[in-house]
Amino acid sequence: MDLQIFIESWRKMRVKLACVAASERRLRLDPAFGLTQEYLTRAALYEPCSIEIFATESALLASLDRRSGRSRSFALLLDGAGKSFSSSQFAAQLGSLRDSGQQQVIACVGPADGWSHLAQTRADLLISLGPMTLPHALAQLVLAEQIYRALTILAGHPYHCGH
Amino acid sequence: MDLQIFIESWRKMRVKLACVAASERRLRLDPAFGLTQEYLTRAALYEPCSIEIFATESALLASLDRRSGRSRSFALLLDGAGKSFSSSQFAAQLGSLRDSGQQQVIACVGPADGWSHLAQTRADLLISLGPMTLPHALAQLVLAEQIYRALTILAGHPYHCGH
Repeated sequence: MDLQIFIESWRKMRVKLACVAASERRLRLDPAFGLTQEYLTRAALYEPCSIEIFATESALLASLDRRSGRSRSFALLLDGAGKSFSSSQFAAQLGSLRDSGQQQVIACVGPADGWSHLAQTRADLLISLGPMTLPHALAQLVLAEQIYRALTILAGHPYHCGH
Repeated sequence: MDLQIFIESWRKMRVKLACVAASERRLRLDPAFGLTQEYLTRAALYEPCSIEIFATESALLASLDRRSGRSRSFALLLDGAGKSFSSSQFAAQLGSLRDSGQQQVIACVGPADGWSHLAQTRADLLISLGPMTLPHALAQLVLAEQIYRALTILAGHPYHCGH
């Protein structure tokens, strides 16, 4: 890869946290949601990061397809049957996507009753936060913190070493 | 076991969340701490629950011994090398302790650099929330939510089924 193209792709991998929540208003009122936004604001110091809330799973899936114009979004779905990562492994995964020129990673937290088979088929990667069941807002918060942690690990910031 | 003694012991298992934090003030200012307290307040509807902050690991260990007058406190330490539990398994573990007459369970979140060998030796059980590293306040929050979830599972409350 040409150095300039490499630097461009390195700089521009957007990371989006996409959530399925029947009531966006109720989710936004959850105190954990404020913390989730805070971690994404911090993470945006390293890569453009944002959050988007969808009322249904199908709205989220439709959005994944709409966005896949220039390059296909990498869809990472939080799923109890997914693969477990340590924080360093998760960082390595994001780093590998970034370095291969991936322009958008969408980390998705699904509906309360889990993903449909269709969503699992669309996923590029299923990841699990562990065998314990977390409420929706807390799973988002943990995932947002892991995204922030991963980006600090890739940037060589000592945040990860402090914990 | 006599029925009256059984009912007494069933009613009185205290669950304490014990944290090691160099700065109690800083921990209390963390927005996640407010949420942790909220989950413990909800959990206290089922069993007496509280939180205690210790400046050092040795202060926490000394406190475990002081409390072991009438019956030994069951010390459950959060540790990366611990056993992973699903929420139902964690509930079954707490239920088994409660039904066997255990009077106090202390769930401990350790210092940032992990537990000493001494603390690991004192532990009755090491549990892990998964391979990802979480900041101190977030590990407490997840543990508090799991304690609340476990007590709702044991009480037959539908909270766990909703997620």
